[in-house]
Amino acid sequence: MKTYLKNLVELNGSKQSKRFAYFIQFLIILSVITFSIETLPDLRPQTQVVLKAIEAFCVVIFTLEYLARIYVADSKPKFIFSFFGIIDFLAILPFYLSFGVDLRSLRLLRMFRLFRLFKLVRYNKAMRHFANAMKLAKEQIILFMIITIMLIYFAAVGIYYFENEAQPEHFSSIFSSLWWSIVTLTTVGYGDVYPITVGGRIFTFFMLLIGLGVVAIPTGIISSSLTKAVEEPEEKA
Amino acid sequence: MKTYLKNLVELNGSKQSKRFAYFIQFLIILSVITFSIETLPDLRPQTQVVLKAIEAFCVVIFTLEYLARIYVADSKPKFIFSFFGIIDFLAILPFYLSFGVDLRSLRLLRMFRLFRLFKLVRYNKAMRHFANAMKLAKEQIILFMIITIMLIYFAAVGIYYFENEAQPEHFSSIFSSLWWSIVTLTTVGYGDVYPITVGGRIFTFFMLLIGLGVVAIPTGIISSSLTKAVEEPEEKA
Amino acid sequence: MKTYLKNLVELNGSKQSKRFAYFIQFLIILSVITFSIETLPDLRPQTQVVLKAIEAFCVVIFTLEYLARIYVADSKPKFIFSFFGIIDFLAILPFYLSFGVDLRSLRLLRMFRLFRLFKLVRYNKAMRHFANAMKLAKEQIILFMIITIMLIYFAAVGIYYFENEAQPEHFSSIFSSLWWSIVTLTTVGYGDVYPITVGGRIFTFFMLLIGLGVVAIPTGIISSSLTKAVEEPEEKA
Amino acid sequence: MKTYLKNLVELNGSKQSKRFAYFIQFLIILSVITFSIETLPDLRPQTQVVLKAIEAFCVVIFTLEYLARIYVADSKPKFIFSFFGIIDFLAILPFYLSFGVDLRSLRLLRMFRLFRLFKLVRYNKAMRHFANAMKLAKEQIILFMIITIMLIYFAAVGIYYFENEAQPEHFSSIFSSLWWSIVTLTTVGYGDVYPITVGGRIFTFFMLLIGLGVVAIPTGIISSSLTKAVEEPEEKA
Repeated sequence: MKTYLKNLVELNGSKQSKRFAYFIQFLIILSVITFSIETLPDLRPQTQVVLKAIEAFCVVIFTLEYLARIYVADSKPKFIFSFFGIIDFLAILPFYLSFGVDLRSLRLLRMFRLFRLFKLVRYNKAMRHFANAMKLAKEQIILFMIITIMLIYFAAVGIYYFENEAQPEHFSSIFSSLWWSIVTLTTVGYGDVYPITVGGRIFTFFMLLIGLGVVAIPTGIISSSLTKAVEEPEEKA
Repeated sequence: MKTYLKNLVELNGSKQSKRFAYFIQFLIILSVITFSIETLPDLRPQTQVVLKAIEAFCVVIFTLEYLARIYVADSKPKFIFSFFGIIDFLAILPFYLSFGVDLRSLRLLRMFRLFRLFKLVRYNKAMRHFANAMKLAKEQIILFMIITIMLIYFAAVGIYYFENEAQPEHFSSIFSSLWWSIVTLTTVGYGDVYPITVGGRIFTFFMLLIGLGVVAIPTGIISSSLTKAVEEPEEKA
Repeated sequence: MKTYLKNLVELNGSKQSKRFAYFIQFLIILSVITFSIETLPDLRPQTQVVLKAIEAFCVVIFTLEYLARIYVADSKPKFIFSFFGIIDFLAILPFYLSFGVDLRSLRLLRMFRLFRLFKLVRYNKAMRHFANAMKLAKEQIILFMIITIMLIYFAAVGIYYFENEAQPEHFSSIFSSLWWSIVTLTTVGYGDVYPITVGGRIFTFFMLLIGLGVVAIPTGIISSSLTKAVEEPEEKA
Repeated sequence: MKTYLKNLVELNGSKQSKRFAYFIQFLIILSVITFSIETLPDLRPQTQVVLKAIEAFCVVIFTLEYLARIYVADSKPKFIFSFFGIIDFLAILPFYLSFGVDLRSLRLLRMFRLFRLFKLVRYNKAMRHFANAMKLAKEQIILFMIITIMLIYFAAVGIYYFENEAQPEHFSSIFSSLWWSIVTLTTVGYGDVYPITVGGRIFTFFMLLIGLGVVAIPTGIISSSLTKAVEEPEEKA
């Protein structure tokens, strides 16, 4: 029995193991789609019943999978407190908690169901690469995020000085000016806030010329470390 | 006769072949422009007659070209089911189908006329490079598209959680939040939807810092593989 | 006399030549600023008189400079039809033409005064680099511009198909859809036109993933050839 | 006494020195946050009192630190006129000046408190890298800024010509057209001004194709020089 389960849940390349992996992946995607559909307003009661049934079915399977993984683990505590152990636990927790919880905190709880997506990391090469890439470049990313945040803060203070009097509703404080900095220096530019004074516009010009280069760096680091992670051979797939 | 036609339709560098190629390219561009003009509202009846005549003329020539290419092909089935054989067929199909079809499905059918643009690939170096580049990087592009789509989905769920209560009309479900994710993480930023809560704005900031790097990768892969495809020598031009 | 003038207008590194070069550069910038101020609405009559006087003074000096350059040239026709010869001529032409011209075409004529900016290329290292870079990468830029334009056209046709019925005022024809393509694929995203149908938004997503990479290439070529042009040593500065 | 202070304010790696450095950094961040909160409208009087007390405390400590640094310096004038000497002075100046100054100029004076952020450069590796990177690439950045500014000016003149008649309120002069150039060529695209004429839109298209490449260069230089500055070993940290 234990050998059979071990053969099933471990990615050893056997036919059964592969089929089981595809089945779990299918359930993850299914439960994520179910989750998305549930957020649609004006769902008919019948649809809600179907969605809840699918959700319950997924959770039952995920629970059995979780128990099986604990059962076959060489060191049970080691698995339970490993990355995938915690993810597997968090993926089913919201469902069981939802019975004993009042409605207000249910909203956040439902969001926790998204942790299921991380279960995909176990099977999905692309996701695993992404996780590796972020781990690899962590230190550099933090360093440049500090610079980026400082520059964004500096831009916010500047624009606050120039625009506060002309547009007190949009640039009411440095905190609301920060929103302008973020949207502008990433070149998203929604157009909900923008400078209208001459001084503010000239300041924006110089901040853009310098700032675009700075904000581009964390972007570049993530890009290149992700590309590197994909090209490097993996130990086991 | 067969030798003459062969000499004509094949790109063997002869004077006749070159002239024929320019003629066909001219017709393709002409028919694409005709197609664009047809979409203009409030066209006068005379103009419509002229446009239809040009279209009919182009289709006749394309049909003759298609038949000639089948006629001179060493292996007729091989040509018919090759990339260019299918494109040549699809380029004339909508015209002939339009006689036996009701008006409702005509709209989509007319769009199929655009397949004519792909006929240009045969003659146009730039288009051929683009096709090669996409084929070359196909695997990598798919891998990163998965990561990109996951990140966009993740951003949509996050912003849905933060903004749904404050702006139920714009962030009514995860599906409508996806539109925000796409527009924001590509930095297009139309400004039709944007977060207004403090939580949503902080979340946007961090998604932008991480997400811009991820979304930039498929872009970068296409760029670099296209540049590579252009620099490499071609077998025949 | 000829030797003195030659010494003056040629960039031979002598003190007089340098002073003259700075003087001409100052006049170019001055006349460009004058030109910009003239476009301001509601100028007082006194200001207009001053601006016209400055303009007349600049043109007189530029004319004398032009004549001197012809006078000292080894081969007069060669100078007159060289790049700088033509620029020097176009820089003064609008002023003299404006006496015999009716008011309607004056607007375009005034714009021609901007050719003066190109006179700066002679003195300004940065401008010269830019001109060189564009010349160097001309062939590649044209190749990729064709691909870019085709992709933009393709996106316009697609969005026209999806959005024409829902927003006939913004996507009235393929030509008006082209504006959307340009603004979206360059990620400018003004927000004056954007898709509202589900089909149009999904199409936008895929066009962005592919299109951003394509549109980025001409940008990249200009960037890299400009950077190369700056790093390479110049023959004479 | 002098030896003790020297040991304290100099970054010699001793335990006391480290603690002191962390304390000063904490005060800088605290005073910057205080500064940001002060800009919030509708603060309660009690909050204002607390903020003013924190500000006074920070300034007292910064003043003591400044005096200590002068006291222990080998060459007092050299320290006072060094980068950090001036920054330390400017960081406390606004507070003392605010006693003898009327309310109107107080606004700008308050902004000067931000110079405190530069005090962080002494302790923060990321900030120091940024300062080095800017110093390194100064010459190149200036060269390309000139090209960028010229291109932005050229775009402004062109769009003024095309759009001035159609939208005199947005493109009233070349100076107001410059704002459009900046927002468009950096791809921010707020959407407050955009061309509506066919000519203006075609012009925008070509300016974008060329301009994006040019504007991307200062960005790229800052990115790469910042990345280089981080990878190079520092003399002392």
